[in-house]
Amino acid sequence: MTNKRCGRQTVTLSSPPVMTASAAIVGQKEGSGPIKDRFDQTEPDAYFAQKTWEKGESSMFERCLNLACKKSNIQPNQLDYIFSGDLQNQCAGAAYAMRSTNAPYFGLYGACSTMAESLALAAMMIDGGYAHSCAAITGSHFCTAERQYRFPLGYGGVRTPTAQWTVTGSGCVIVSDRGPGPAITSITAGKIIDLGIKDISNMGAAMAPAAYDTLKTHFEDTGRSPEDYDLIVTGDLGHLGHPIVSELFQQDGVTLTNYDDCGRIIFDREKQDVHAGGSGCGCSAVVLAGHLMRQMQEGKLHKLLFAATGALMSPTTSMQKESIPAICHAVSIEVRQA
Amino acid sequence: MTNKRCGRQTVTLSSPPVMTASAAIVGQKEGSGPIKDRFDQTEPDAYFAQKTWEKGESSMFERCLNLACKKSNIQPNQLDYIFSGDLQNQCAGAAYAMRSTNAPYFGLYGACSTMAESLALAAMMIDGGYAHSCAAITGSHFCTAERQYRFPLGYGGVRTPTAQWTVTGSGCVIVSDRGPGPAITSITAGKIIDLGIKDISNMGAAMAPAAYDTLKTHFEDTGRSPEDYDLIVTGDLGHLGHPIVSELFQQDGVTLTNYDDCGRIIFDREKQDVHAGGSGCGCSAVVLAGHLMRQMQEGKLHKLLFAATGALMSPTTSMQKESIPAICHAVSIEVRQA
Repeated sequence: MTNKRCGRQTVTLSSPPVMTASAAIVGQKEGSGPIKDRFDQTEPDAYFAQKTWEKGESSMFERCLNLACKKSNIQPNQLDYIFSGDLQNQCAGAAYAMRSTNAPYFGLYGACSTMAESLALAAMMIDGGYAHSCAAITGSHFCTAERQYRFPLGYGGVRTPTAQWTVTGSGCVIVSDRGPGPAITSITAGKIIDLGIKDISNMGAAMAPAAYDTLKTHFEDTGRSPEDYDLIVTGDLGHLGHPIVSELFQQDGVTLTNYDDCGRIIFDREKQDVHAGGSGCGCSAVVLAGHLMRQMQEGKLHKLLFAATGALMSPTTSMQKESIPAICHAVSIEVRQA
Repeated sequence: MTNKRCGRQTVTLSSPPVMTASAAIVGQKEGSGPIKDRFDQTEPDAYFAQKTWEKGESSMFERCLNLACKKSNIQPNQLDYIFSGDLQNQCAGAAYAMRSTNAPYFGLYGACSTMAESLALAAMMIDGGYAHSCAAITGSHFCTAERQYRFPLGYGGVRTPTAQWTVTGSGCVIVSDRGPGPAITSITAGKIIDLGIKDISNMGAAMAPAAYDTLKTHFEDTGRSPEDYDLIVTGDLGHLGHPIVSELFQQDGVTLTNYDDCGRIIFDREKQDVHAGGSGCGCSAVVLAGHLMRQMQEGKLHKLLFAATGALMSPTTSMQKESIPAICHAVSIEVRQA
């Protein structure tokens, strides 16, 4: 076995797999924000033509996978593996959607870190020779998440200023062993970090230490520095978690000048009433599969460190007064010169 | 990239990773059944000395991981990856337990197929050179599952004759690139199969077609036949699902003579009032990590096809009148001659 490990938590990929295509489908609110032109489809119907929001979420996943496959000129049943998961209990949003694919399926639960987790596993499977083409797909839906995690929507509960807004959207990336597209060059898998924060309306603060831990480890393991990337983007720490990560690096004497967060990018804080920004598996998924993939295709972005973050609590653990464990996986993506 | 694929859904591992140690911890009922002497610990306290069953389940996972690591002479923080998941919403049982490990973590959701899913991914990560040692760990708890999926325990609901009994137990396998122990030689990842069964009290029937599909594909992909194994064991189809798989093979003209199911093995159907047998992530996990690992160590079992099955529905999808999607991943395990 060839050792591909680099430091404690990072692997480098000797035959970097390629992100040959991606698709991003979003809801009305996401399709009205600052990056509204960077998605493939905006769906005004929150039910996605289904009878329930949950079925609608599955329909959105299915449509997103099919679109990404079409762009990559592959049929879903030709995929060697699909890596997917979502926020619905028992990850039902993903599982019900992927019934139609007739492709081997690995179900994941990484909360809002799922886009990075699925990309990481897909990339290692391809680099290792276990697959030629994989799909990494996730998403979330504001209405299914609100009623599962918080209150019935009709209740009209007031949101705290620290709350984030769960993105309605699905993002899918096709990863292949050949073809054009940005390459996945290294992966830093995250540990579960829990510094004791219990406020489920302040997930940015709960997840920021996990993001800091994974990013810091990535730089240590690879010998790279933040300036080696054009952009470092975390998952959905939002307007509260983002400055915490910056400050944690500042305490180490490192000023991050090229650092943003998908929860800040997707909505207009002033105009869209989202409080602390976007969240949900779909947030980093559609920002990557929609906006950032286009940035790379347009030659505006060459080296990206994509670090999606997840908060791993449940309503039950919150009721039992537990704190919030968090995780962050980082994937380094580079546009290779032709 | 070396192609390690073999047929549509199978990969063969060129440097077969080794199951260097395992641990199985069970509750009182499991520790009173026919394989009661084949576990490491039986815990009579359903709370595992915690305040809630959910925290108890996490405590059980933590104890199980630590014990398996100890047997394999490794510290949890030396593991390159932990692959884990469970049945609690948001897979909280696993996530909260793994906070203490300080090891990179990939969260999975495969319902009761999680033991095979985690073993499969761990094995490919090691064979591919991305890791030296990984833990594959899962489990379930009767009390947390009953109140999440069915009724409050105090309600004392009558169970249908087709119902299975969720195992309280956790099983962990340490997979390494060197050392003694049975080797993982091939993996057949399953597709999601849904033949339209909606009765959530008859999960054996819902999962049997997925087990049949994966097993049949495994034999086609590898050119092996059922007789090439000493034992083929499915996850937790129980007393109703097991004969369905046998009959589906019979229709193909194949008589399975060496086929059993973990849901049948773990409980005594006559004496333990479990109706259709055991279920839950912990069922196949403790039968493998406890009983079957011992069988292999004792020289009684040399070639095992371990095919854990999962039903991917949720209480929400059932209320929305959805059918039950199922999955089965198969892992071939062989004792190599010294």
